[in-house]
Amino acid sequence: MAQKASIPKGTRDFLPAEVAKRSYVTDVIRTQFERYGFLPIQTPAMEKSSTLKGKYGDEGDRLMFNILNSGEKVKKADLDALEDGALGQFTSSISEKALRYDLTVPFARFVVQHQNEINFPFKRYQIQSVWRADRPQRGRFQEFTQCDADVVGAVSPLLEAECMQLFDDVFDALSLKGATIRINHRAILAGIANYLDAPDRIVAFTVALDKLDKIGPEGVFNELRHNGFDDAALKRLSPLFDLTGDVVSQLNQLEEILISQPDALEGIAHLRQTLGFLSSFKVSQLSFDLTLARGLHYYTGIIFEVAPPESVAMGSIGAGGRYDDLTAVFGLKDVHGLGISFGLDRLCIVLEELNLFPATLKQAVDVVVLHFGDAYMHDLVPFLAKWRNMGIRINCYPTAHKLKKQMQFANQIQAPWVMFYGNDEQQKGVVSLKNMGEGTNSEIKLEDFSKKCIN
Amino acid sequence: MAQKASIPKGTRDFLPAEVAKRSYVTDVIRTQFERYGFLPIQTPAMEKSSTLKGKYGDEGDRLMFNILNSGEKVKKADLDALEDGALGQFTSSISEKALRYDLTVPFARFVVQHQNEINFPFKRYQIQSVWRADRPQRGRFQEFTQCDADVVGAVSPLLEAECMQLFDDVFDALSLKGATIRINHRAILAGIANYLDAPDRIVAFTVALDKLDKIGPEGVFNELRHNGFDDAALKRLSPLFDLTGDVVSQLNQLEEILISQPDALEGIAHLRQTLGFLSSFKVSQLSFDLTLARGLHYYTGIIFEVAPPESVAMGSIGAGGRYDDLTAVFGLKDVHGLGISFGLDRLCIVLEELNLFPATLKQAVDVVVLHFGDAYMHDLVPFLAKWRNMGIRINCYPTAHKLKKQMQFANQIQAPWVMFYGNDEQQKGVVSLKNMGEGTNSEIKLEDFSKKCIN
Repeated sequence: MAQKASIPKGTRDFLPAEVAKRSYVTDVIRTQFERYGFLPIQTPAMEKSSTLKGKYGDEGDRLMFNILNSGEKVKKADLDALEDGALGQFTSSISEKALRYDLTVPFARFVVQHQNEINFPFKRYQIQSVWRADRPQRGRFQEFTQCDADVVGAVSPLLEAECMQLFDDVFDALSLKGATIRINHRAILAGIANYLDAPDRIVAFTVALDKLDKIGPEGVFNELRHNGFDDAALKRLSPLFDLTGDVVSQLNQLEEILISQPDALEGIAHLRQTLGFLSSFKVSQLSFDLTLARGLHYYTGIIFEVAPPESVAMGSIGAGGRYDDLTAVFGLKDVHGLGISFGLDRLCIVLEELNLFPATLKQAVDVVVLHFGDAYMHDLVPFLAKWRNMGIRINCYPTAHKLKKQMQFANQIQAPWVMFYGNDEQQKGVVSLKNMGEGTNSEIKLEDFSKKCIN
Repeated sequence: MAQKASIPKGTRDFLPAEVAKRSYVTDVIRTQFERYGFLPIQTPAMEKSSTLKGKYGDEGDRLMFNILNSGEKVKKADLDALEDGALGQFTSSISEKALRYDLTVPFARFVVQHQNEINFPFKRYQIQSVWRADRPQRGRFQEFTQCDADVVGAVSPLLEAECMQLFDDVFDALSLKGATIRINHRAILAGIANYLDAPDRIVAFTVALDKLDKIGPEGVFNELRHNGFDDAALKRLSPLFDLTGDVVSQLNQLEEILISQPDALEGIAHLRQTLGFLSSFKVSQLSFDLTLARGLHYYTGIIFEVAPPESVAMGSIGAGGRYDDLTAVFGLKDVHGLGISFGLDRLCIVLEELNLFPATLKQAVDVVVLHFGDAYMHDLVPFLAKWRNMGIRINCYPTAHKLKKQMQFANQIQAPWVMFYGNDEQQKGVVSLKNMGEGTNSEIKLEDFSKKCIN
């Protein structure tokens, strides 16, 4: 019996029309990255497990795809661990490699490994797949593509401003209007935790805060109470939920409230410096979001997250922030980092929903040449070579099927032009060219056909 | 203690200069594929094990990277199989997915799965990584990139000719001279096996023949004797090693010898038809190679293999052939296929050795803007946005380090232009532009700077 043709859940095949759309988006992102001086690197799909494990929390370790050791090596399986239910230990005994889980940890590993081959400040971009054994749902896949730009080895509000401008330039180039860049600063969160007399409970605090959207202020208060914050603390917190106006005025209000917290003031000052550069750039939609915390262990300064236009129900389509010392775990200390990331797959869903893909992407071939028999094709072959050399994309129908069948094919692949070369044309030394959109026909001398004829 | 920053054996990081070279080659290949009407598809890195297993022979199954099942599923480990040394069975009990081993089997699976969404004859190309747990050596990696173009659903010597022309066009576009396309035909091999009274031993026969290069005619004879071919058979085989002249005359000699073998005559006739088209194309170096057998189980018609120029010691840089019914295992019968493949990694090694990468690839950024303090940068920021919008790639040095350090950076990243905007320039409303190659300087009004200035 034949095997069923199918692929693992959460993975996808991309047909030509989809590849064209994805390439369009990655080309736009790549072009913008390069305009900001980022250079491309690539890292292997497989990393050593020791490189990845423990870098993404327990959930990350659990969702990582592990690669089974080859050949005899599986004999080293730790069966005691399996029996004891120590599945992580069992896995380690038969697996030394795992699939890339994001692009940031491999980049940190890369920077340390190649520190003598790269020039700091190092601006790199990377557009590659990552894999997570997550439950698939809308906008979430087990194999998906991240587009990351990071700069390591420098601290400067100019870089932060450039990152935000870069988000904006990419959306502009994609004609995507209405995306909002939300920002926050880790030092402000630390200042607030301190202000609430809970500097050691900053994680619990930000986890609760992060849920404001979903559970409202009362929900956040309840969760904080549950985590040992007392009423006095919650009373102090309350006004922080009532900031109004644009980013600048919200920062002013925040400064008044947190005037006694040096950490928070530093974060506010830093955001102001960044905004100073941004006012000369022209970032369209920016909002300050005190609840934005994103993987707090990881980020140390500014934090970004990009929400799609409100009309599209979808999680963030971009994110980033400043992280310091991510390379320390691999032995290189004090390397400051800042990065942003676009989620290609979600971005494509958003563009699709808003009908923003250019119509020209559909045109993957310029001309279908119909086939009236090898004798005619022999005449055409030297010209085909010449025309292809001019950059014309030609699909030559391979056999002399009935005209109707060939025309049907040309229609189905959405060829804008069809070329005929049969008996009549051979007599005259011409090709007949049909404009499939307009239904018009013209005759062109064999030696005169060129790109101009199909414009 | 810090973890060592390293990657699994047989895998590679690619630094910006290497990515630029690899992108150059894939861009050339992609452009040429599209000129022949091939359309891009992509398939997941992970396939179901059942899709891949048993398709590449025992070696393939052994060299496949298997992905461990996630979470609780590893509890289903078949420990009896492990104890019995049935490692394949043990692996199957804890792994349901494997990494793509080539692009052809996933493509066959794709064609069956999407048969109602694609239009036959379907010309697809695919440029993606594949993974094999092979012993790494020069030109052989555990993660490498294949560039495949296949057409399914048609039989036509024109397509075969186009494939060869496509090899040639790619090499032309890469300025690679001296690659040789070697061809053979499966029906000729079948005819010879029959001519030697050993139609059932065609595999042993071709395996021996394939070694002619390494062990010479005597070695081949010995191996065949060992496999039960008698002296009469070997005497009949001998003249086949002595074909001389170009492809056409070799085919003529072969026809005389194998005049009694219908299979062989059919193969010869088919090669002649293909060559008929090729004579109008202009394929540079073509050779008939009776010893070429490449995965015989798989190919059913013409077989291609491309050798690099003689000056480079390296295995084949391209290959392909006609295969029929590869989709049958997934339930779709009688789908004829023909494909060629370029090995990106080997091609890059060959181009590197022959110094064929364009010098312009080194230029990954156009301008480094030196940083004399935020006050100056505030002036520049709106112009930076404008210039980047013009497509100029600008790396803005992030902090006001000493001039020497900044110039060193610009040198190291091989920036062709460096821009200064300090006190003097601010007074005059200009930027100073240094041509790093020629060491010359010029002043340009802020509003006049454009792409022209850096050409």
